[in-house]
Amino acid sequence: MTNILQKFKPIKTFVFDIDGVFTDNGLLVTEQGELLRRMNARDGYAVKKALQEGFSIVLITGGTSKGVALRFQKLGVQHIYSGIENKAVVLQQFIDTHQLQREEILYMGDDLLDAAPMLMVGLATCPADAVPEVLAVAQYVSPYKGGEGCVRDVIEKVLKLQNKWLPTEQMNVYA
Amino acid sequence: MTNILQKFKPIKTFVFDIDGVFTDNGLLVTEQGELLRRMNARDGYAVKKALQEGFSIVLITGGTSKGVALRFQKLGVQHIYSGIENKAVVLQQFIDTHQLQREEILYMGDDLLDAAPMLMVGLATCPADAVPEVLAVAQYVSPYKGGEGCVRDVIEKVLKLQNKWLPTEQMNVYA
Amino acid sequence: MTNILQKFKPIKTFVFDIDGVFTDNGLLVTEQGELLRRMNARDGYAVKKALQEGFSIVLITGGTSKGVALRFQKLGVQHIYSGIENKAVVLQQFIDTHQLQREEILYMGDDLLDAAPMLMVGLATCPADAVPEVLAVAQYVSPYKGGEGCVRDVIEKVLKLQNKWLPTEQMNVYA
Amino acid sequence: MTNILQKFKPIKTFVFDIDGVFTDNGLLVTEQGELLRRMNARDGYAVKKALQEGFSIVLITGGTSKGVALRFQKLGVQHIYSGIENKAVVLQQFIDTHQLQREEILYMGDDLLDAAPMLMVGLATCPADAVPEVLAVAQYVSPYKGGEGCVRDVIEKVLKLQNKWLPTEQMNVYA
Repeated sequence: MTNILQKFKPIKTFVFDIDGVFTDNGLLVTEQGELLRRMNARDGYAVKKALQEGFSIVLITGGTSKGVALRFQKLGVQHIYSGIENKAVVLQQFIDTHQLQREEILYMGDDLLDAAPMLMVGLATCPADAVPEVLAVAQYVSPYKGGEGCVRDVIEKVLKLQNKWLPTEQMNVYA
Repeated sequence: MTNILQKFKPIKTFVFDIDGVFTDNGLLVTEQGELLRRMNARDGYAVKKALQEGFSIVLITGGTSKGVALRFQKLGVQHIYSGIENKAVVLQQFIDTHQLQREEILYMGDDLLDAAPMLMVGLATCPADAVPEVLAVAQYVSPYKGGEGCVRDVIEKVLKLQNKWLPTEQMNVYA
Repeated sequence: MTNILQKFKPIKTFVFDIDGVFTDNGLLVTEQGELLRRMNARDGYAVKKALQEGFSIVLITGGTSKGVALRFQKLGVQHIYSGIENKAVVLQQFIDTHQLQREEILYMGDDLLDAAPMLMVGLATCPADAVPEVLAVAQYVSPYKGGEGCVRDVIEKVLKLQNKWLPTEQMNVYA
Repeated sequence: MTNILQKFKPIKTFVFDIDGVFTDNGLLVTEQGELLRRMNARDGYAVKKALQEGFSIVLITGGTSKGVALRFQKLGVQHIYSGIENKAVVLQQFIDTHQLQREEILYMGDDLLDAAPMLMVGLATCPADAVPEVLAVAQYVSPYKGGEGCVRDVIEKVLKLQNKWLPTEQMNVYA
């Protein structure tokens, strides 16, 4: 456990899959064939807080949802890659363009197509209910399932280790 | 337990966070980027009953949802503060304006930003699934999770202690 | 248990509350303040089957939802009473108008306002997660929660005891 | 168990019910009386993958939802039969038209009306939470419930036995 916490400490960039990570894989189908996704307010708070503290958040998803993109744009996320078949290629390009160090990148995904990009980063993580192939390559498995706080779990861990988690007022509370 | 029930008895004002208290933190994202929240019919009954019996209900939330505001207005709630970053400041102003006694105020919240206002009231409560920082400062932790009846739990406790809970017809049933 | 099955046998009329019986008490709030409810396909099948076999289905609810009314009208339900504060009065009028025998009526409800009408019928039932006051007056508590099949459970019990449950083709399967 | 895996091996055609198989039987009722269904992203991936690998997917449902049909058309499903009362008749016609071998067909259903068609195919399967009558005739009961991955479970089993499951890139990962 000491070892794995060491790997959370240098993280500067978070890369997330969306379905099964920000959601519980549920897709609500409307009469117009639109797909609504159910996200988590606590994950949203963590994303906002990480962005305020200067971290990068990158989303790479196989899906294509205008509403989901809008939701994340409102939270301040600037890097959203939708409709991606090969996530490893997109991640490699992002790493090259921004000249990132692998040990500073955390990836979280839950399904088959996430296994390849997970092998490219310093810290490969997944929700508690990821598929077996993903659980097999994850260095850290969150105790939380997709849509139930796994995103917040890894963001909170990194920010706490860097003393950036608690809001100023909150710090006073515990002072 | 005797002690904590003593603290429910003088309550005249309920202050609630919304996400994670009236909801399970779920946010259903539509194609237009709207966020739909899932509330609980039993909590709604309790809010309506409390208002009928003359209690004050105050909602302070970081979110901004027209639909949620409409829902609560229909239930009769008059004090709704949306898009609030610093809840403690808003609560202090409300206390000052209405000249409230702290021991007559119950607060229920579930996340980091609720810890500060929880320290300002006579009875700090939270749902069973609040974050650790909130559980740490709560005087009463409801056995119910957010969206699963935690609001009703605290309202019901106060009204029962003041003999205001059962509907008249219901009282006849048990007479 | 023999005794309670005896009470299912003469049932000809089913009276149901909606929130917490056909649903898990969840209310999805849209940006327009509309309240969407989540029902169960298996309950729907049971309602349809009961109507086909000549049973009466009566719905008495405190809520007022155009969509819910439409859903039940499509299933063939003719007796829907919405926005009802005092359910006992409505039930009494229905009993009088249709000259029903009390031992032929089954009622299922989950919340405080259902306790009074439950005392007026031959068989008072509730979902597994009804409130304590309702559990106290129920003669039969379904093992299923609201929205998870409690409606089907009681309809299925009555129709099976009267040999009306299985579809004709299904009967061949087991012949 | 060896025996049952033998039955997965020759499968070329998957026949699925929708409610209770792709969904948890939940129906979200809108104010317009529309019924929204909640599907699973992982099931969607499996359906897409099976179609890419040349399998046939057939859907036979008692419901009638334009949105659900659109969702499956986008995934590439060509055979969707909606509003069907007698599923066995439709399945027989499909078998005759396409001259299928029964041992090459897998059926998955969860409710009473699925029992008859289940008896017509080589491999009758159901979700963990199917009704007793269906559990009784199923040759394989998935450990997953409806809407929680039971579709993916059976597709994954067939494709793995035929070495068609892993994406090419994924294979490299494990090479």
